Amino acid sequence: MKRNERFEALAAGYLFPEVGRRRKAFQEAHPEAKIISLGIGNTTEPLTPHVEDALVAAARRLGTAAGYSGYGDEQGEAALREAIARVHYSGAVRPEEVFVSDGAKCDIGRLQILFGSCAAVVQDPAYPVYVDGSIIQGASLVYMPCTRENGFMPELSVIPAGSLVYFCSPNNPTGAVATRDQLARLVAEVRRKKSILVFDAAYSEYVSEPSLPRSVYEVDGAAECAIEVNSFSKPIGFTGVRLGWSVAPKALKYDDGRSVNADWNRIATTLFNGASNIAQAGGLASFDPEGRSEMRGLVGYYMENARLIRSALQALGVECIGGDNAPYIWARFPGRDSWEVFGEILEKCHVVTTPGSGFGPSGQSYIRFSAFGHRESVVEAAGRLARLGR
Amino acid sequence: MKRNERFEALAAGYLFPEVGRRRKAFQEAHPEAKIISLGIGNTTEPLTPHVEDALVAAARRLGTAAGYSGYGDEQGEAALREAIARVHYSGAVRPEEVFVSDGAKCDIGRLQILFGSCAAVVQDPAYPVYVDGSIIQGASLVYMPCTRENGFMPELSVIPAGSLVYFCSPNNPTGAVATRDQLARLVAEVRRKKSILVFDAAYSEYVSEPSLPRSVYEVDGAAECAIEVNSFSKPIGFTGVRLGWSVAPKALKYDDGRSVNADWNRIATTLFNGASNIAQAGGLASFDPEGRSEMRGLVGYYMENARLIRSALQALGVECIGGDNAPYIWARFPGRDSWEVFGEILEKCHVVTTPGSGFGPSGQSYIRFSAFGHRESVVEAAGRLARLGR
Repeated sequence: MKRNERFEALAAGYLFPEVGRRRKAFQEAHPEAKIISLGIGNTTEPLTPHVEDALVAAARRLGTAAGYSGYGDEQGEAALREAIARVHYSGAVRPEEVFVSDGAKCDIGRLQILFGSCAAVVQDPAYPVYVDGSIIQGASLVYMPCTRENGFMPELSVIPAGSLVYFCSPNNPTGAVATRDQLARLVAEVRRKKSILVFDAAYSEYVSEPSLPRSVYEVDGAAECAIEVNSFSKPIGFTGVRLGWSVAPKALKYDDGRSVNADWNRIATTLFNGASNIAQAGGLASFDPEGRSEMRGLVGYYMENARLIRSALQALGVECIGGDNAPYIWARFPGRDSWEVFGEILEKCHVVTTPGSGFGPSGQSYIRFSAFGHRESVVEAAGRLARLGR
Repeated sequence: MKRNERFEALAAGYLFPEVGRRRKAFQEAHPEAKIISLGIGNTTEPLTPHVEDALVAAARRLGTAAGYSGYGDEQGEAALREAIARVHYSGAVRPEEVFVSDGAKCDIGRLQILFGSCAAVVQDPAYPVYVDGSIIQGASLVYMPCTRENGFMPELSVIPAGSLVYFCSPNNPTGAVATRDQLARLVAEVRRKKSILVFDAAYSEYVSEPSLPRSVYEVDGAAECAIEVNSFSKPIGFTGVRLGWSVAPKALKYDDGRSVNADWNRIATTLFNGASNIAQAGGLASFDPEGRSEMRGLVGYYMENARLIRSALQALGVECIGGDNAPYIWARFPGRDSWEVFGEILEKCHVVTTPGSGFGPSGQSYIRFSAFGHRESVVEAAGRLARLGR
C-alpha cells in the first residue's frame, strides 16, 4: 500500500505535541522546576454544579429501563438544537440548521471532507487544523496575513473566487475580535467571490464588549454564505467532555443552487454518529438560567487571568493584543524568533507558552499566552514573567 | 462555491434514514399500529450498574478541583489503552498501538481520510459507510460478493494490489463469522497483494463458539497488514454514549517502509480531540471483572433474542444464517425484492427490518433482522412473523 501522498506535504509535527515534547525535555533536565503552562488553551476549573448535575442525571437515566437511549439523531438531540437556536442565536438560526458535534476541531475536519480539494483561504497566523486538514484533503492554500500593520484584520482582496474561507473571531491565536463593520466587509467579499465562509466562533462567549459581534449571523447576508462552528469546550469547560456544534443555514447554496445543509447532513449521518448523549445533557443544562449564570462566572474567571497576564507583560513594555474579549494574549517580541523566546520563557520563568510562528509565518516574533489556568498558577506565572526584564 | 463533485456519485439517501422515513410514513397512515423495530442495530437495554456507576463517578469528579481534567491525550487515556491491550487482546497488541475513539463508524471515516483516493475493496453486502465514505474520498471501489453459494466468504483473488480491504466479522449484515482458516487465507492474500486490511470487529463479543476468532490478530502475520476497529456500542450498550477504538500495529508499514501507526497518530491528533472523558471512564470499568460479567449478561440477552427471531423464521421455512455468533439474522426470500419484503413485513407484522439490497446488490432478496430489542417486543415480533406464512 502506498502512503497517501498528501501526508508528504504535512509539516512533521502538530504544534502542540512539539510544545509538549520540549516541555517534557526541560522538566527531565530540571526535575525541580515547577512548570506552569500558559500554552495550550486547556480549561482547568471544575465543571459548574448545574452542568455537573445534568451529566450525572443523564448517566443515571441510562441505567434505567425508562431512561435508556441508544443511537440518537446524528445531528443532535432536538432539545439541544432548539436551545442553541433559541438561546445562543436568539432565534436568528433555526434548529434544523444546527448540527451538534463532538467539538469544533472535529467539525472542521468533517467540513474539510465536505468541501474536498477546493481553494482554502486561511488567516496567517491560524489555528493549525485549518491548514493541516486542508492539506490532507488536497486543498490549495491561500494565506491572509494578519499583522500589527493591518490591525490583525487581513486584506480580503486575495480571496479567490469559489474558495473556502476560514475566519476565527475572537481569534486564536491573536485574541483579535472583528468589529461588526469588519465582519460585514468580510461577508460582502465572500459573497462577491461566490465563496463560502467557515466562521469559527469557539471563543464567542469571551466577548464582553457589547458592540462586538459574537456570531457571523449578526451580519446581514451571512446566512447566504457562512457556516459557523462553535464549541462548549471553553465556555463551560467541556474540553474533555467533548461537545460542539455547527450551523449550516438552509439559505446557503452551492453555485448550482443545491443545498449545502443537505450535504452537511449527509456527512453528519454517514461519517459521524452523534455526540455523546451524556455530554449533550450537560450542554443542554448550560442553556438554563443557572447554566448561563455559571458560564458567565467561569468565563469571568479566565478573563481575570487574561488581565493579570497582560498587565504583567505590559509592565515589562511588551506590546500585547487580545486578552480583553478573548482568552489569548498575543505578545510581540520584535526581531526575535518565536521558538527562541518560547525557550527563554521556559528557562527563565518555567512557564510554557505557544510560539507564534507555530501558527504561521506572520506569527514570527510573537508568543501566545493562554489565560486558562488556576488563579494561583497564573498569579505565580505573571510574577515570574518579571524575570524576562532582567 | 462548486459542490464537491464526489457527492454526485453518492446514492441519494443513507440506508437507515430511508428505513426511518418509510416507517414514519406507515405509522402516519396506520396510527393504531404498534410498530416493533428489528431494523437498525440499536441497543435497548439499560447500562449495567458497574459501568453506570463509573460514568456517574467520572461526571462527579469533573465537578471537583482535584478531579477535573480538560483535554486528554487524543489517542485515549493511558489506563483505557492499557486495559484494551491487556484484557481484550490478552497482550497481543501494545497500548501504544491502541487509539480510543468516539466509535467505529467515525474511525472508519477517519481511516478513509488516511488512505484517501486508493482502491477500496468491500464485501457485498456491506455496512454502508465503507462504500459511501470511500466515494467521498475519491476511492475506486471493488466489490467482493458474499453469497449463499460461497458460504458468505468471498473470492479473494479479486483484491487489487496496493488496495484497502474492508472485512467485517462477525459480519454486518449477514451475521456470518469467518473461521480461523478463512481469516488466515484473507491475511495471506492481503499480504501477497501488498494491501492493507481494515478489520471491523465491532461484534466480536457476540462470538460464543470458542474456535472462532474474535480478532484478526489471532492470525499470524495480521500485525503486518491489518488495522482493527472495534466499539463499545454493542457489548455494553454505548451506542449513544459513544466509545470505540482502533488498533494500528507498529509493524504495519507502507511499501516505502514508513509507519502507518505514525500517520494514524497524526490523523488522531490533527482531526480529532479524543473521546469523551466520561465515556472513557465507563469503557474502562467494563474491563473490570464486574464489567466483564455484566457485558456477558447483556450480550447473552441479545443473543437469546437472536435465537427467538431465527426460530420463528425457520418455523416458516425461511432460510437464515447468522444469529448464532452475531446479533444479526440474514433471512433469504428467494426471487423477491428486498424492499418489497421489507414492505410486506411492515404491513403484515408491523415489524421494521432492514432490506438486504440496501447493503449492496448481493443483498437482494435478503432481509436483515436485528436482535437488539426488549425481550417482550422481540417475543411479540417473532410471534407476528407467523402472519407472513399465511
